[in-house]
Amino acid sequence: MATKKYLLSENDIPTAWYNIVADMVNKPLPPLHPGTKQPLNPSDLEPIFATELIKQELSQERWIEIPEEVRDLYKIWRPTPLVRATGLEKALDTPAHIYFKNEGISPVGSHKLNSALPQAYYNKKQGIKKLTTETGAGQWGAALAFACSVFGLELEVYMVKVSYNQKPYRRSMMQTWGADVYASPSDRTESGRKILARDPDNSGSLGIAISEAVEKSVFDPEIRYTLGSVLNHVILHQTVIGLEAEKQMEMAGEFPDVVIGCFGGGSNFSGISFPFLRHKLVAGKEIRIVAAEPASCPKLSRGKFEYDFGDTVGLTPLLPMYTLGHDFQPADIHAGGLRYHGAGTIVSQLHKDHFVDVEDIPQIESFEAGQLFAKTEGTIPAPESTHAIASAIRAAKKAKEEGKQKTILFNLSGHGLIDMSAYDQYLSGNMKNYQLSDEDIAKTVNVLEHLVP
Amino acid sequence: MATKKYLLSENDIPTAWYNIVADMVNKPLPPLHPGTKQPLNPSDLEPIFATELIKQELSQERWIEIPEEVRDLYKIWRPTPLVRATGLEKALDTPAHIYFKNEGISPVGSHKLNSALPQAYYNKKQGIKKLTTETGAGQWGAALAFACSVFGLELEVYMVKVSYNQKPYRRSMMQTWGADVYASPSDRTESGRKILARDPDNSGSLGIAISEAVEKSVFDPEIRYTLGSVLNHVILHQTVIGLEAEKQMEMAGEFPDVVIGCFGGGSNFSGISFPFLRHKLVAGKEIRIVAAEPASCPKLSRGKFEYDFGDTVGLTPLLPMYTLGHDFQPADIHAGGLRYHGAGTIVSQLHKDHFVDVEDIPQIESFEAGQLFAKTEGTIPAPESTHAIASAIRAAKKAKEEGKQKTILFNLSGHGLIDMSAYDQYLSGNMKNYQLSDEDIAKTVNVLEHLVP
Repeated sequence: MATKKYLLSENDIPTAWYNIVADMVNKPLPPLHPGTKQPLNPSDLEPIFATELIKQELSQERWIEIPEEVRDLYKIWRPTPLVRATGLEKALDTPAHIYFKNEGISPVGSHKLNSALPQAYYNKKQGIKKLTTETGAGQWGAALAFACSVFGLELEVYMVKVSYNQKPYRRSMMQTWGADVYASPSDRTESGRKILARDPDNSGSLGIAISEAVEKSVFDPEIRYTLGSVLNHVILHQTVIGLEAEKQMEMAGEFPDVVIGCFGGGSNFSGISFPFLRHKLVAGKEIRIVAAEPASCPKLSRGKFEYDFGDTVGLTPLLPMYTLGHDFQPADIHAGGLRYHGAGTIVSQLHKDHFVDVEDIPQIESFEAGQLFAKTEGTIPAPESTHAIASAIRAAKKAKEEGKQKTILFNLSGHGLIDMSAYDQYLSGNMKNYQLSDEDIAKTVNVLEHLVP
Repeated sequence: MATKKYLLSENDIPTAWYNIVADMVNKPLPPLHPGTKQPLNPSDLEPIFATELIKQELSQERWIEIPEEVRDLYKIWRPTPLVRATGLEKALDTPAHIYFKNEGISPVGSHKLNSALPQAYYNKKQGIKKLTTETGAGQWGAALAFACSVFGLELEVYMVKVSYNQKPYRRSMMQTWGADVYASPSDRTESGRKILARDPDNSGSLGIAISEAVEKSVFDPEIRYTLGSVLNHVILHQTVIGLEAEKQMEMAGEFPDVVIGCFGGGSNFSGISFPFLRHKLVAGKEIRIVAAEPASCPKLSRGKFEYDFGDTVGLTPLLPMYTLGHDFQPADIHAGGLRYHGAGTIVSQLHKDHFVDVEDIPQIESFEAGQLFAKTEGTIPAPESTHAIASAIRAAKKAKEEGKQKTILFNLSGHGLIDMSAYDQYLSGNMKNYQLSDEDIAKTVNVLEHLVP
């Protein structure tokens, strides 16, 4: 009888996160202060982030120990299973072996909890009383809400107004875990009030929500801000995914030819792929790493490598990244978590140095892949995760054409049970692909100041 | 570092289901033909159910082998973890050890898949082309939709109209897996058309949906009907839960003092508890088995042991069971899966013989328990499962009062991510408890014909 899942014991939960910066040929360029445009001083970040997280953000240490308290909480759902997708393989009639790491079994339904728990932990340890954050579709906000509940921290979530109204289930989840959730723009911050004064019907954006959440932290020493992707320390925490998967692929007696993650800001993508990429960086091992981004938000394939802001308003430090420009307005695709204009600093440098490939997935192809996966493997994937599945299916079809037995690994970053309205639209035949012209992209990219040396 | 989860390997998935009938002191009374009121002939059921499932329904064999194909599919998510609820224990400050079996990690979000897969398998093997079923909240319909997708069977689901409109997410799930879902009453059946002619705005009931689904199977030899609870063969399939839990409690070095399941028709309750109850039946081992039913639908505690119909209309065989009467209209509580007038035949006999205790949980207490569980253990439980959690919390508080270290095990039958509107209502403070007077109950129970010998 064929083995389907590769399971680890709790003792196999990694004891340290992997920091790929230590092994990078070209280290990432430093973030710049938005005012002086000079490299940022770590102390500039102190009012916003917990000290330990700033240290991790700038660290070049290869391994960073996971605190025992965090590891204990990881046990709630980790290690997650590595699954051989035999049903999908059969449906594709491919010689390829397809594996996926199932991060959807976390109590919040996605990988986001891997970073929410340590972020809450370090803040708690520092004596912080309250966290703030922004959330779009709500995956990150939900994860942080549970993490704050565990550590007895208060939490204010600024949720993009249009999502607040359209995704009531994820708002309810955050509230069930005890968070205060506000539709952004709100009247609770100067940033929000300014925007509402100008435009009372403003439906919000991730950029505005970031501004509100950051503002709340800056003016109160007992409050800190947290972010769920893009930044180095977030990516660091997510490497538990790939470190476990590495052991599990060994159990399966295989090493992947290709490792795939869907790509928004980079957290789940980096989490699954960096521990495998390490073997290429350190030992020259042959492996293809694929970031599966939505065709409607193609920062890695069609963006430029420039210094740009992390938010729309322009309050954050300038980060060196592949970007479509902080003014870029992504189409209203269902994969809310992938609607971000820039790629994290580390991934951007790795892509520039040809260590990371990219594939652009049109929305309809992603949902075709998602439904096929649901019908063969059971789990209905999150709209974000369907991009990774679509890329895996491309690789499996290519293996069939070439008659080669390739080993494919992708990350199932979350399930889609809160996103069923997206599947409704797909099944109704009314789903759109969004094609971007070069002019669309040039409008927001070409106006960026050229600060890369 | 404390162990949190007890994990089994795929080899530990049981090879046989446990049939408690073999060990019962008093065997269940036979089902009666609704026309003749004489014991049913197995062949009477042939037009409705697959032959192998009828055999299982009437079997007195202790162990019934799980087909290799079904066991292979169980591997998609089984074995499920047994979890020590350390967060909940801490919050309750109790000396009790609380364990739960997490059936919510199944791809459909509940235990229902344990029976959906074998039911689809046996029908496929018999050459059946299409299945029909009814569903209320949609947990069973969703599980069967995935099972039919795997075996290439068509599926028609009759979903209670009010749920069809109020729970679009679960309808979408079924459709994503490929099922045809109809709001019941529909114009596709004689039963449906009759009701609509009389009452075009009829919002449906489980009883009507059963009539429609059964009718579709009776008149076509390539179609069979399936049910997700109550019947002996469904309960049989669910014993994989308790059989795994038995091994996992051994790993934890404990034997439960009390085993708890929420109670609707009896499938998850029997699944977790029968393998433990066996030790009492066979070896006299001390153990308390608790069915946690909603106070608004108290069939075990306040119903009568009589022969009654499984459906509201009165088309099914007469089953000997604790019932509130097939006309009983349960209050509109959020735990849709517990809104059923009768208890399965086997559980009814065991309750009559004092092997099964019952606790009635008011709706608000169940959601208080559900939120506390979410905040301490992460998973937001299904409204049904919150009843089991509430009962476990009662037991843990009692242990604290008595200063005794009790071992408590309950089944987390599913997660509640599709039911967040219920949590919304709870958090808003507008949730109701439903108190039933003796007169409310007497109205539908006292009119039943007395056929129990």
